[in-house]
Amino acid sequence: MPTPIEFWFDFSSPYSYLASEKIDELAARHGRKVDYKPTLLGVIFRTTGGVPLTELVPPKASYFIHDFERSARFAGVPFRQPSRFPIPTVGAARALLWLQQQDEEMAVRFLHAAFRAYFSQDRSLAEPEVLGTLATEVGADPVALARGMQEPAVKDKLKALVDESIARGVFGAPTIFVDGEMFWGNDRLPQIERWLATGPF
Amino acid sequence: MPTPIEFWFDFSSPYSYLASEKIDELAARHGRKVDYKPTLLGVIFRTTGGVPLTELVPPKASYFIHDFERSARFAGVPFRQPSRFPIPTVGAARALLWLQQQDEEMAVRFLHAAFRAYFSQDRSLAEPEVLGTLATEVGADPVALARGMQEPAVKDKLKALVDESIARGVFGAPTIFVDGEMFWGNDRLPQIERWLATGPF
Repeated sequence: MPTPIEFWFDFSSPYSYLASEKIDELAARHGRKVDYKPTLLGVIFRTTGGVPLTELVPPKASYFIHDFERSARFAGVPFRQPSRFPIPTVGAARALLWLQQQDEEMAVRFLHAAFRAYFSQDRSLAEPEVLGTLATEVGADPVALARGMQEPAVKDKLKALVDESIARGVFGAPTIFVDGEMFWGNDRLPQIERWLATGPF
Repeated sequence: MPTPIEFWFDFSSPYSYLASEKIDELAARHGRKVDYKPTLLGVIFRTTGGVPLTELVPPKASYFIHDFERSARFAGVPFRQPSRFPIPTVGAARALLWLQQQDEEMAVRFLHAAFRAYFSQDRSLAEPEVLGTLATEVGADPVALARGMQEPAVKDKLKALVDESIARGVFGAPTIFVDGEMFWGNDRLPQIERWLATGPF
């Protein structure tokens, strides 16, 4: 069995959302699984000097919002720029990590539901009620989820993932590793597809 | 006749080089011409706070050099990271502008020869002798070129182009306008192709 594709992301990253809508099928076409690894861009940016795209100087910020929308249409993915952006995603990341411990498939359903809620329905993942509702939608117990998100093991797991992402040179999202090869950005899906199909180039 | 595609670039931009190797054929497939417009990232960056990719913090800088090389292999374009990077490109841009006034097709040949010299043969376009040799290679008179690069009209033209690029929100290269729609980056060629084939999306 080949190693899974590592998909590092932040729930507040629009290009991570776009890539998340394609990566499962892309991986499956090449007999791979996807290992979803949340990290926190807010923490990463403190080490790299990164800035959220919408907080860049005006011509860049407005270009990127236009590009989010156009890239979503190009990909055939529903998108609406959230009214609150970016948002803290510690809670959503912990929710995913707790769900991954309970039920891998349920966790994947939660991930996609959460990304779509934020980036196509303007539901802020920074609100605990939104996370609870999403849990219910994917068949999880929202009360158990709320408790699980507070477990020290879950908090430690997220901290370890953020540290690992920084140690491995992740500076933006999505960052996708295929057999150790690092690809940054939704734009690199075509290169990833070739790498999976024909090996290193 | 549909309007030309505007291709804004800096001779020191690796992703501009990669895109320059594809844009003529892409445009021709859709009955368009390419209008090559040099600008100066060094000047643009002073207004946008931009930084050359290789001068970013170490994990970003090393990723980008790896990505230049991998993206070139993906595109089937010869590439060797120049030993001097980035370089001042005022001279190369003025040379192109002067050639565009003499002979449009010769200017396009010069542009491609210059990009390939810098990004696959490590010949620095900051050296006047390199520009003269390239002029000879494409059938231009290097003495006339050296004189032409000093003409006030040529200098003013480049200044006007840099000002125009900033006024239109260009913050990186390549930036490609199709009927007023702005696309930034070599990665956007697939979106440009769809736009040309089926119209706005």
